[in-house]
Amino acid sequence: MTLIQSFTEGQEVTGHYLLKSALVKQTNSTPPKDYLDLILADTSGEISAKFWDASSVDKEAFFAPMLVKVRGVVQLYRDRLQFKINKIRPATDEDGFNITDFVRAAPVPPNDLVYTIKTAASSIDDVELQVIIEHCFGKVGDKLMHYPAAKGMHHAFYAGLAYHMVRMLELAEFVCKQRPFLNRDLLVAGIILHDIAKTEELTAELGIVSEYSFTGKLIGHIPLAASWITEAAITHGMDVNSEKIVLLQHMILAHHNLPEWGSTVQPQIPEALALHLIDQMDAKLQAAEDAISMMPNTENWTTPVRALENKAFYRAKGE
Amino acid sequence: MTLIQSFTEGQEVTGHYLLKSALVKQTNSTPPKDYLDLILADTSGEISAKFWDASSVDKEAFFAPMLVKVRGVVQLYRDRLQFKINKIRPATDEDGFNITDFVRAAPVPPNDLVYTIKTAASSIDDVELQVIIEHCFGKVGDKLMHYPAAKGMHHAFYAGLAYHMVRMLELAEFVCKQRPFLNRDLLVAGIILHDIAKTEELTAELGIVSEYSFTGKLIGHIPLAASWITEAAITHGMDVNSEKIVLLQHMILAHHNLPEWGSTVQPQIPEALALHLIDQMDAKLQAAEDAISMMPNTENWTTPVRALENKAFYRAKGE
Amino acid sequence: MTLIQSFTEGQEVTGHYLLKSALVKQTNSTPPKDYLDLILADTSGEISAKFWDASSVDKEAFFAPMLVKVRGVVQLYRDRLQFKINKIRPATDEDGFNITDFVRAAPVPPNDLVYTIKTAASSIDDVELQVIIEHCFGKVGDKLMHYPAAKGMHHAFYAGLAYHMVRMLELAEFVCKQRPFLNRDLLVAGIILHDIAKTEELTAELGIVSEYSFTGKLIGHIPLAASWITEAAITHGMDVNSEKIVLLQHMILAHHNLPEWGSTVQPQIPEALALHLIDQMDAKLQAAEDAISMMPNTENWTTPVRALENKAFYRAKGE
Amino acid sequence: MTLIQSFTEGQEVTGHYLLKSALVKQTNSTPPKDYLDLILADTSGEISAKFWDASSVDKEAFFAPMLVKVRGVVQLYRDRLQFKINKIRPATDEDGFNITDFVRAAPVPPNDLVYTIKTAASSIDDVELQVIIEHCFGKVGDKLMHYPAAKGMHHAFYAGLAYHMVRMLELAEFVCKQRPFLNRDLLVAGIILHDIAKTEELTAELGIVSEYSFTGKLIGHIPLAASWITEAAITHGMDVNSEKIVLLQHMILAHHNLPEWGSTVQPQIPEALALHLIDQMDAKLQAAEDAISMMPNTENWTTPVRALENKAFYRAKGE
Amino acid sequence: MTLIQSFTEGQEVTGHYLLKSALVKQTNSTPPKDYLDLILADTSGEISAKFWDASSVDKEAFFAPMLVKVRGVVQLYRDRLQFKINKIRPATDEDGFNITDFVRAAPVPPNDLVYTIKTAASSIDDVELQVIIEHCFGKVGDKLMHYPAAKGMHHAFYAGLAYHMVRMLELAEFVCKQRPFLNRDLLVAGIILHDIAKTEELTAELGIVSEYSFTGKLIGHIPLAASWITEAAITHGMDVNSEKIVLLQHMILAHHNLPEWGSTVQPQIPEALALHLIDQMDAKLQAAEDAISMMPNTENWTTPVRALENKAFYRAKGE
Amino acid sequence: MTLIQSFTEGQEVTGHYLLKSALVKQTNSTPPKDYLDLILADTSGEISAKFWDASSVDKEAFFAPMLVKVRGVVQLYRDRLQFKINKIRPATDEDGFNITDFVRAAPVPPNDLVYTIKTAASSIDDVELQVIIEHCFGKVGDKLMHYPAAKGMHHAFYAGLAYHMVRMLELAEFVCKQRPFLNRDLLVAGIILHDIAKTEELTAELGIVSEYSFTGKLIGHIPLAASWITEAAITHGMDVNSEKIVLLQHMILAHHNLPEWGSTVQPQIPEALALHLIDQMDAKLQAAEDAISMMPNTENWTTPVRALENKAFYRAKGE
Repeated sequence: MTLIQSFTEGQEVTGHYLLKSALVKQTNSTPPKDYLDLILADTSGEISAKFWDASSVDKEAFFAPMLVKVRGVVQLYRDRLQFKINKIRPATDEDGFNITDFVRAAPVPPNDLVYTIKTAASSIDDVELQVIIEHCFGKVGDKLMHYPAAKGMHHAFYAGLAYHMVRMLELAEFVCKQRPFLNRDLLVAGIILHDIAKTEELTAELGIVSEYSFTGKLIGHIPLAASWITEAAITHGMDVNSEKIVLLQHMILAHHNLPEWGSTVQPQIPEALALHLIDQMDAKLQAAEDAISMMPNTENWTTPVRALENKAFYRAKGE
Repeated sequence: MTLIQSFTEGQEVTGHYLLKSALVKQTNSTPPKDYLDLILADTSGEISAKFWDASSVDKEAFFAPMLVKVRGVVQLYRDRLQFKINKIRPATDEDGFNITDFVRAAPVPPNDLVYTIKTAASSIDDVELQVIIEHCFGKVGDKLMHYPAAKGMHHAFYAGLAYHMVRMLELAEFVCKQRPFLNRDLLVAGIILHDIAKTEELTAELGIVSEYSFTGKLIGHIPLAASWITEAAITHGMDVNSEKIVLLQHMILAHHNLPEWGSTVQPQIPEALALHLIDQMDAKLQAAEDAISMMPNTENWTTPVRALENKAFYRAKGE
Repeated sequence: MTLIQSFTEGQEVTGHYLLKSALVKQTNSTPPKDYLDLILADTSGEISAKFWDASSVDKEAFFAPMLVKVRGVVQLYRDRLQFKINKIRPATDEDGFNITDFVRAAPVPPNDLVYTIKTAASSIDDVELQVIIEHCFGKVGDKLMHYPAAKGMHHAFYAGLAYHMVRMLELAEFVCKQRPFLNRDLLVAGIILHDIAKTEELTAELGIVSEYSFTGKLIGHIPLAASWITEAAITHGMDVNSEKIVLLQHMILAHHNLPEWGSTVQPQIPEALALHLIDQMDAKLQAAEDAISMMPNTENWTTPVRALENKAFYRAKGE
Repeated sequence: MTLIQSFTEGQEVTGHYLLKSALVKQTNSTPPKDYLDLILADTSGEISAKFWDASSVDKEAFFAPMLVKVRGVVQLYRDRLQFKINKIRPATDEDGFNITDFVRAAPVPPNDLVYTIKTAASSIDDVELQVIIEHCFGKVGDKLMHYPAAKGMHHAFYAGLAYHMVRMLELAEFVCKQRPFLNRDLLVAGIILHDIAKTEELTAELGIVSEYSFTGKLIGHIPLAASWITEAAITHGMDVNSEKIVLLQHMILAHHNLPEWGSTVQPQIPEALALHLIDQMDAKLQAAEDAISMMPNTENWTTPVRALENKAFYRAKGE
Repeated sequence: MTLIQSFTEGQEVTGHYLLKSALVKQTNSTPPKDYLDLILADTSGEISAKFWDASSVDKEAFFAPMLVKVRGVVQLYRDRLQFKINKIRPATDEDGFNITDFVRAAPVPPNDLVYTIKTAASSIDDVELQVIIEHCFGKVGDKLMHYPAAKGMHHAFYAGLAYHMVRMLELAEFVCKQRPFLNRDLLVAGIILHDIAKTEELTAELGIVSEYSFTGKLIGHIPLAASWITEAAITHGMDVNSEKIVLLQHMILAHHNLPEWGSTVQPQIPEALALHLIDQMDAKLQAAEDAISMMPNTENWTTPVRALENKAFYRAKGE
Repeated sequence: MTLIQSFTEGQEVTGHYLLKSALVKQTNSTPPKDYLDLILADTSGEISAKFWDASSVDKEAFFAPMLVKVRGVVQLYRDRLQFKINKIRPATDEDGFNITDFVRAAPVPPNDLVYTIKTAASSIDDVELQVIIEHCFGKVGDKLMHYPAAKGMHHAFYAGLAYHMVRMLELAEFVCKQRPFLNRDLLVAGIILHDIAKTEELTAELGIVSEYSFTGKLIGHIPLAASWITEAAITHGMDVNSEKIVLLQHMILAHHNLPEWGSTVQPQIPEALALHLIDQMDAKLQAAEDAISMMPNTENWTTPVRALENKAFYRAKGE
């Protein structure tokens, strides 16, 4: 199997790849002709692909995400590699491949990530906080096993959401040790819940977000998570006006720090501030690491990174 | 009884007034001396007052809001009238005055306002929306009879919140007639609920806000109202993910229109847009009307109005 | 006649339509070929159309706006319907169609709109204000019968300007009843004049704006309307420094409220504030109503609406 | 006569000074006492002054601007010099002083400034532009001889407006020589008219602005000057829609460059751009020169300069 | 010795304290009288103090920072405690106190902090980076032993700058372990150098910043540190255009992330981004910890914290 | 030779032109075909050109900048002229043309410009300033003879940087005469050095910028020039902390005036302010002059000018 990352201009390739996006488009010829505009992916990267001779049957046969077998040639188009498909068919069971082997995923198995998160949840001393988290886990179901953390900003891969939580939990342990005045219970609960409603805000399969959901557009994951806490408290007979629950909701509402980033209240307890800073650090460093690691070996500058002030990043030569 | 609005420089006044604010301050003399820095009010306006010869007993005896009897003289201080108190005592039952007669209030009796709001609520065809509103009324209790709509921006008077709702409902009826494509049920429900959690966000007595509450600071009235809807739905066995409830929460969350004004989602249904525009129109015209009506007769320009781009307003001579 | 709104993929259509835009473009083939890139419209909507086999004669024969007869087929191109023209010719008198029957227009006849506006003008008590309005009507001529209120933001249709005025006048009557302290004369005059210089700022035919005029780009409709008032006053021997005329000019200059929206002074009389709020309410609700009403029946979300924070609007299913 | 600039702490001074501002204030003693809070000025600078023992008669006797004779002592108050008045009386004719000798003024006699401006006006080839300027001179009358250019931002001194014009005209001559493609007629006319309506926007006497006028607040000098041009054109039978007049109005409207600085159109002809840049250069360098030249000799840093990003300026030692 | 933190209203206190600020001010009495407006401090906090009966000699005798012995009484003034001094004199050697015992300082001895920093510097593999750091240490001298990191935003205490570096180095070790793709050498060097020119930007004694220096105002610590690196490279014969030195300067220039925060380039290598995020995390959490820890025990809300969006912080009751 | 400015639709042209940009692109036909997308230029303007029938050899043979001989026809494509190439080959020595004759250049010979700049440098009285400038000249080498001042904003032509300096020096002479309080030495030095590091920030050949350099992206020309001054001072044994050198660096760092324009310090000496204003005036007027002078004769409006608020400029008819 040839990894996409290793494709070179002029190379002829036959192999199985993940179909990550599939659109029927038209050529600009007179009259226009339909063709398939695809994105092929594997764990090493992704590449734009064109199937020029798509039949009416083909147009109905391919949709994302699915596993396909392709034959074709790598070409250069506008300074970027592109794959010209000569033959394409859906993969079959006989091919003996598993689609999940082609999906970019967190570097830790989802089971381990979820185990780590649940262990952290059960390490919280406060029982009510534990019950609230448990309630939210119930709403999320197994989405925690595979949801990405975003459409494209950061952790946009299989189990990216859980991986983001786990790395933040690691940072939180260190910060709580550096600064013992922080309330560990609140911070751990805040980390687990801060993005949990992304599972409802986004529609995703195999770690790939296809769109914002109806609720995602009209409510957004921050007020949604606040409502989940209310729901958990009401359902389990807690006082929604208690200091603990108000502080937990505050952490969720404030974790984007500023109105223009989605927070209408600013952090007003140290744990809310810590949550915001830990979230920033993990999200931004991950975005930088992704940009650098997925850049072709022949380049020194990445394409502009939307999550990082839209700046291109430089990979040092280390001369 | 002399109305505050009619005070003139040099006038000697004896009478009962509402003590709206009472602070112990110190003179800048050497050594400093304590005095009482007060605001007296009646329905016609308010005036700064000083009681220079406050004893230790006096410092404990006066707090806002209460009714007092004062004797003193009107003076000019930095171009504004000020009242120098020579004698002051708390009003007694024998004085025969009712504190509420001194409080600035909506021009319609609270009972009538609440009746109008409840009639509007019961005119909603959708039973679930009615139940949600009813649930929120239950949380508010009789605060609807007297709460102001804000600390100082607009409708900062007794029953100002209910008055604001009623005027918005009137506007909504007109707009629904002009534009029949609007969903009246949603708009009426949105108007009744959009500011209802101000009763929890603010601490107020006699129409006067003393401060933002703990929950008000950390959550804010917009996410709070969204959580109340969740609570109502859960309590009454409704589906929190139904289109109706998502749209109702969307209206609340979007009614300030922009992140910098407190809305992290923007209006995405016509009724949410209408709610925002009706809210703006009533709030801003009320602020202008208040500024013009409470300005001394001898002036043509008001002091700058914070709710209106901090601009002074001009009262035309109509020559 | 098949309405554009009802076009479906694959349908063959023959009929008359309004040619709203006509450009000669080139294919990307080698060598490129010229074709006609058109927009066809009727009262129900509009559709992109291509005439691939345009001759040199065709390129000179078609220009917007005109009435044409076409034959062709509806196709899907990049998720949107598009019309492939096989035959096209200008409509002739014998065809028996009137171009105005194909133009999107205000839902009230222009004559009635103008009558309503003139009635409102003559209801103003102040004679000088009447004379100023009359002078401006003289400058506008019959453009009031057909001009749109904007290029695309809101009321971008035949007689949209007059319709906008009439709906604002209705709102103003209601608001003046709710708040009798407002000066009705000033508010009515302000509404009639606030956008009147759009007839000079924009170049439009059949309700379609083709471009900003020379004066429109260099002066803009707001300072232009202020100058018209000066002109009216000078011509009719009024004192340009009188309170009345200064206030009227102030209303025009302030009606966009903020510098970034085109107003270098902010409202400083209640009537200027009311004018701004009424303008906003009518313009924004109309933009929302247009977006919802012109969306294909199969969709739930409109395309992003530029006048409304560039947000897509949702049409509730009302389940 | 002792110049204010040369006052030193502890110095006893008797002399004549300009009373530039006079307010009755109250001490914070118990009870408060009235005193006069004054600003004394001469051509070298100004100083805050207090007259603690003001009688009822004194309070009515002093108003700005007038010439007074004072006796008192220079003190240090909060790190700044202040003048404690022991005796004060209005100057009389017998004193033999002329108030204008005490007023800070442009370094060129007003007659010369106005002569230079009129010469520039008559050097314009285009007769209509000349007529428009003449018309505006007629409206301004002799205010051009003494008006300042602003309340405090720059050229806030006697004949500051005319001085600003003259220096801009000098710069324009140079720039037209460097760049002959510029239309000198338009640029000269634009310079003369760009701030001319400040004579109506501001209320000023002896080069000191006391306040914004009614028209100044509600219209502002930029739209006002545009209306004056309309008035001139109508009065003298010119076509207000001619290219020349539209361009002239455009220059006035655009000369602040950005909406947040008061221009709703941006420069779209080179002469409008040149006008903006020349205005900026003269206004800002003058503000810097004023700040440096009026700073006490013992200081190296000025107080923050509002017109210059609110930055303090440094006077180099030139070691 | 009574700690300032434990002062209560009405308490009579005699003891030694650090004089942190000393100004001669005037009462508002007629005529005004001079008094000393002081800030007294010890390691537990600080308090405003007044010495009303200051003689001419006193005014010259006290300046900050120095150690004084005072006698007086704690009073309440505008809701805050204040100390009324009856007697005050400079401390003498016989008193047996050391001023440094009264100064708020990092919780780790300066020697240890500097040792940790130097150890980190010598752990860098790249010799040129080591030499550059060494050169900068030479310029700083022993200021690293006592300089604060800022005037008031964060780490505004004795050895605050070194403490900030050490904590950032701890965070960096952790982050480098979490994300091994980061270049540890660059990150460690960036942390040590990012704020090092604050020792030149600020004038400070005993951990207290009195003002920005001449160079601090005109250059600022960020471009200053970049120039120091140039100076080090030139002095030690390195190539200023090598990748390593450009990246190091980039890290310094970019560490405030955005132009409005002082960075004209944005992070474009992962280490620059990490430096920014680690700096933010340490600075902001320290500001929150300081605000919470120095708040009186009787309060639940701090005063607004300028470094944290100017928000008041809440100390949870932990009910 | 036919000047590009005089090309008309349908014209057949054979001649030599500068190849300013050369990209291999693909047609959208099925399958796509490679073609050359070129920009041809001469001193009168530039034009997009296509060579549809490019062979594999052609794709390697053409790169910018080079001189080519072409034969082809002028066509209209999307309202703009475009050149369809039938034959193309690199120019040879035998053709007898010099590439520099085809490059748009400053209207003054580079030798004269550099002579003027060096004369200005040697007119500076202060020897240290002279030495610093000399040092920077040494770093720049002969780039001053041909570098443009920017990629596209202003002075984007051969020797544009030197021309910009010379015109600024002329303006500075005039301003120093108008305002003798300015320090001419500092101002002249600041003008010569303010953009000098653009020779390192940009990669350019024949007056055409191809990209920002590594150092340009990571440091930027402003901090770079500041470091050059440090380097000069260190190398020549000057005190980097002297007032003179701090002020010179301040001028460089502050000359963009605001953080969002690249200056983290604002002008705090009059010479820094003057430098900023002179830079603005020359850059912006040049951008306007370029836009007007390079517009086709048949147009009245330029395309939007990015350096001038992205506004189109109007060329008056001067009727």
